[in-house]
Amino acid sequence: MATKLGKQTYKPDNPPYIISTGTVAGPFEGQGPVGKYFDHVYTDTLAGERSFENAEKEMMTNACFTCLNKVNITPQEVDFFLAGDLLNQTITSGFSALELAVPYLGIYGACSTSALGLAISTMLVDGDYARLVLAATSSHNSSAERQFRFPTEYGAHRKPTTQWTVTGAGAALVAKEGTGPRITYFTIGKVTDMGIKDANNLGAAMAPAAAATMVQHFADTGNGPEYYDLIVTGDLGKFGHELAIKTCITRGGFDLTKNYSDCGIMIYDLEKQDVHAGASGCASSALVTYGYLYRQMLAGKLKKLLLVATGALHSQCSVQQGSNIPTIAHAVSIEVE
Amino acid sequence: MATKLGKQTYKPDNPPYIISTGTVAGPFEGQGPVGKYFDHVYTDTLAGERSFENAEKEMMTNACFTCLNKVNITPQEVDFFLAGDLLNQTITSGFSALELAVPYLGIYGACSTSALGLAISTMLVDGDYARLVLAATSSHNSSAERQFRFPTEYGAHRKPTTQWTVTGAGAALVAKEGTGPRITYFTIGKVTDMGIKDANNLGAAMAPAAAATMVQHFADTGNGPEYYDLIVTGDLGKFGHELAIKTCITRGGFDLTKNYSDCGIMIYDLEKQDVHAGASGCASSALVTYGYLYRQMLAGKLKKLLLVATGALHSQCSVQQGSNIPTIAHAVSIEVE
Repeated sequence: MATKLGKQTYKPDNPPYIISTGTVAGPFEGQGPVGKYFDHVYTDTLAGERSFENAEKEMMTNACFTCLNKVNITPQEVDFFLAGDLLNQTITSGFSALELAVPYLGIYGACSTSALGLAISTMLVDGDYARLVLAATSSHNSSAERQFRFPTEYGAHRKPTTQWTVTGAGAALVAKEGTGPRITYFTIGKVTDMGIKDANNLGAAMAPAAAATMVQHFADTGNGPEYYDLIVTGDLGKFGHELAIKTCITRGGFDLTKNYSDCGIMIYDLEKQDVHAGASGCASSALVTYGYLYRQMLAGKLKKLLLVATGALHSQCSVQQGSNIPTIAHAVSIEVE
Repeated sequence: MATKLGKQTYKPDNPPYIISTGTVAGPFEGQGPVGKYFDHVYTDTLAGERSFENAEKEMMTNACFTCLNKVNITPQEVDFFLAGDLLNQTITSGFSALELAVPYLGIYGACSTSALGLAISTMLVDGDYARLVLAATSSHNSSAERQFRFPTEYGAHRKPTTQWTVTGAGAALVAKEGTGPRITYFTIGKVTDMGIKDANNLGAAMAPAAAATMVQHFADTGNGPEYYDLIVTGDLGKFGHELAIKTCITRGGFDLTKNYSDCGIMIYDLEKQDVHAGASGCASSALVTYGYLYRQMLAGKLKKLLLVATGALHSQCSVQQGSNIPTIAHAVSIEVE
């Protein structure tokens, strides 16, 4: 059971534990500033497979088994597998569910999936429908670029606002009992449309959704930004990050300048790695939070984290047909005592 | 709270009510044997829009508002909107969520979405995370055919095993309190792969998943097929329907010959409407169950229904790359007293 705060936020009566995580990344991500915190870094983006799509499946499956193996839990003990990704028909998640053979609930939130999975897992665990839920997501630069934009081989020019899709996968095991950081609140977002049509400027499209969810979260809980040691958005990149700061001030008077960063900025060295505006992709927030920040929490270096994962819900078809890009953001508060 | 029965089935302590449904369909579906039970039948598959994708969005949004209006409930009163569809990045659901402005949980189960939505809604309502959840799904023949197979204008030959994607949308409002049929059990499926690669034979690909979930449901609950007045699968078509009957006998000794049909057979007149093996698409089971069968339950003509919605989780890309078609089925038991 939970207490509903305001219109969109929930406080579980028995906050579930994130008892384990698994993170795997591509070589380029392994070279980034937080690369040493991932469980496995592949030496090749094909990950030993014959297509980038198969490589992504290998990565998600590996992240899941890594997560389970760390705490000696078998797939048979897991009540539900919740997963989503960017590929059409979330095929990575479907194939990974086949490998795991766990009852499967497919979800879709684009790059907000890292938080969406944790939020739904919390409801299932705290609502007494599950003891153990495995939540996963993934993205792959080469499979995503050719699906949403152009095959990499075309050598299409990238704009200054373009972000670099992260290659990797993350999984988190949410449990009724155990040890580890706990999910203390979550805020489910509404879909936002501010008229952006440019799929090369997703940070600008997603920043208003991130700001709306953060302002709602602060208002619903009564905990302002200062409650958290760190607030991270999923993959706004440097322009979206600036825009989110401005929007939180103008819409709610909340000052994010002291303790707010973006996983899309943290995962790469924006000076040395030529990724333009930063990172995007479901794996951006999954790798940074399930990998780097989770370890910081276990080490006691970080106590209160607000993950605000952002998703652009467009398709290649909707962009080609001239539709605006609808976006969403879900927030999850993760705390250690 | 729920009682978990076996490995995959749940019995909610307080079975939620389906207090309303909304169904809208294309003109071809309106001409079918159950067409008169839909709330709205469009005279044109474009539904007044400029693309088939926009038409599908119009249909899902219309189904949702129709569902809410029947019971005088506004979107602001709904805790969560759960939706999924077949289009890439489930764009229909994303755009409908924008129109509704309800906190949105995106789901993906291909044509199993009608049951997946009801099952997750049940967990949120019975787990005390929601009072009202709106679950919706849709498909459109013209948007699906050009995405998964060929644009209709090509006039590509259809195989005897090919199914016809249903044009329409369905929504169901799941509530903690109220009147109407109740969700008394559900069984969450695992992903199945029996080696089928032919996207023109989805009934054969999905039948083993349907059978596996049904056998599991009967075993977990101790209620055999005879417990139900009617058992319907989502969109197996006539060949998949036969295969499901055989598989339930060989795998579990369960006899489905007395009270089992398939929404993909029921929605069209297979003699007069040239749809080859029957219907497919998320709207197949949504229209038949949320429309026709829901009204039969309200009228007291049907007391115990088992909906087993089936999904083929492939993408056009995965088929082109030669991967097998992974499939899933979720079962939901709906009963009136």
